[in-house]
Amino acid sequence: MSARDRRNPAALAQGVAAGDRLALARAMTLAENEQPGAHAMLSALFPRTGQARIIGVTGAPGTGKSTLVTALAKAYRNAGLSVGIAAVDPSSPFTGGALLGDRVRMRALSGDDGVFMRSMATRGSLGGLAKATNEIVMLLDAAGFERIIVETVGVGQAEVEIARTAHTTLVVEAPGLGDEVQAIKAGILEIADILVVNKADRPGADRTIRALELMLELGADEPRYAGHHGIIRYPAGQESPLPGHEWQVDVLKTTAVNGAGVEALCGHIEAHWAWLEESGELAVRGRQRIAYALESIIRAELNQRVAAAMPQTDVDRVIDAIYAHETDPYQAAAKLLSPENAEG
Amino acid sequence: MSARDRRNPAALAQGVAAGDRLALARAMTLAENEQPGAHAMLSALFPRTGQARIIGVTGAPGTGKSTLVTALAKAYRNAGLSVGIAAVDPSSPFTGGALLGDRVRMRALSGDDGVFMRSMATRGSLGGLAKATNEIVMLLDAAGFERIIVETVGVGQAEVEIARTAHTTLVVEAPGLGDEVQAIKAGILEIADILVVNKADRPGADRTIRALELMLELGADEPRYAGHHGIIRYPAGQESPLPGHEWQVDVLKTTAVNGAGVEALCGHIEAHWAWLEESGELAVRGRQRIAYALESIIRAELNQRVAAAMPQTDVDRVIDAIYAHETDPYQAAAKLLSPENAEG
Repeated sequence: MSARDRRNPAALAQGVAAGDRLALARAMTLAENEQPGAHAMLSALFPRTGQARIIGVTGAPGTGKSTLVTALAKAYRNAGLSVGIAAVDPSSPFTGGALLGDRVRMRALSGDDGVFMRSMATRGSLGGLAKATNEIVMLLDAAGFERIIVETVGVGQAEVEIARTAHTTLVVEAPGLGDEVQAIKAGILEIADILVVNKADRPGADRTIRALELMLELGADEPRYAGHHGIIRYPAGQESPLPGHEWQVDVLKTTAVNGAGVEALCGHIEAHWAWLEESGELAVRGRQRIAYALESIIRAELNQRVAAAMPQTDVDRVIDAIYAHETDPYQAAAKLLSPENAEG
Repeated sequence: MSARDRRNPAALAQGVAAGDRLALARAMTLAENEQPGAHAMLSALFPRTGQARIIGVTGAPGTGKSTLVTALAKAYRNAGLSVGIAAVDPSSPFTGGALLGDRVRMRALSGDDGVFMRSMATRGSLGGLAKATNEIVMLLDAAGFERIIVETVGVGQAEVEIARTAHTTLVVEAPGLGDEVQAIKAGILEIADILVVNKADRPGADRTIRALELMLELGADEPRYAGHHGIIRYPAGQESPLPGHEWQVDVLKTTAVNGAGVEALCGHIEAHWAWLEESGELAVRGRQRIAYALESIIRAELNQRVAAAMPQTDVDRVIDAIYAHETDPYQAAAKLLSPENAEG
């Protein structure tokens, strides 16, 4: 692809559709940076999406999540499936820790055209991250990757919600990460379709598994998490799953570093997909994914419009006035958003 | 206060100003639920704010953060200072883990009118949480609490940014939480004014401290984190700190469970306040806090307006059309937001 085509959204869309890896990488950058033409490019590629199965993997730091994702990717490759990975990582600007980890990982998967990995930092706005992640997934889907793994560090609600837009969500725990109460506090169990205790060769693995199973029993009667993001009420899916077709959340053991348990986990993910299809839940989650995408786009557009309507000098003046207690943030916000202000 | 006054925003504002704890609790509920009159109440109380010193405490699960916050609160009480605590906790709907932990904590602090604790869950929208946290802090400030501790589980960017609106931000680590690389990946070091290694009586504490000090050295030349949330560019504070007045981030040791190191930490927090005043950074952070508050209010207002302008039946129809690939999310969002749609 020519240097000029690299910045041309229509050419990038064609490149993505044709399986050009460089075009795919550049299309991702265009989307992440919300550059002009990004939306038109994604619009053009949208008809090609909807083929991939999306697996969310989330869990606290220290659970060996990245190693597990790498092992999952290898297992899929062994089964002849192509794999895209979107790793959402709250990277630090000064340490570069995430990048280092990803580089190690990419080496394990490199030289294989059936794998494409993209890592994303959480710097900047959170809404922007959710939107960008969704767009990275769309691009991997449009490029024909059959399994897409969205990996997030899952203690924050944002990361949890990003993982939640997957078809199948794995929540990864590990023995010895302090008290089991921490797993409770992390508040991510209710989003799990499958619980994975990784590093299962370590002491305390059985205790962790028992604690998780106990929590699952305690929570069995509770309704499943339903997202709500302020603008769009999500399709509720009350009709789903069909009676008698409930999904049973199980706790699986893996030792990703040597591959133990990973094949069984893959099998369980496939079983979950079969359940999604037969229960009608697949359509519910598909609509939820769309609602999530739509909301993130609407938010981004609103942010742009409001930012454009509020000159920074006005905002600075208002902040000074609030700081001096001449007004308060509520009256100031109302004034900034009033139509008179927009006209004036 | 009468049953009627409990729901009357003006009466609640008066109650908060008068130090009525029941009024304060109800005012917080009003703000959290964004009930009618909440903004008017906060507007009325705003002139009373700006007195408290706000301390953010963040860190991964397992670092003993909650115990440290309780120990800090006790130390402030011993010094004759009143303390408000806003604990932002990604609680799970089915486990109730956060509530349990808070109940244990509140027992340790109960029966003392000089302490007020409020815990908040991260369910629902993230922007909503940031706004609500800011409003809980405003209410504690208006009620006259002299030190306000905002405690967040700090791996997610949202929680980090909430802590970041404090005057002084503590990032808590602990030995033995897996690899030091995890501390890097958490990506929260750059927001720290003070690093605390809690559980310092555990094996490996010195190794953790050395790793953190090394990372601080590596990062010494990097610019400090500056927030940006999409709508408002934050006051940049390029002029601050004054040359020769840089703040030195230190690593302190505590064993919160027995109080070791907590007095020294309090002293270090006071030293940071003195630095904020003399360096001019206090005004910079004050303006950043205001920008953050203003942005959260504007976002909430926009969400309401857009939600009101988009009937759910329209949204459901659009989601169905996207699901059927008859349109795509970008075209659909543009159409939903177009003035023609709003009129029709």
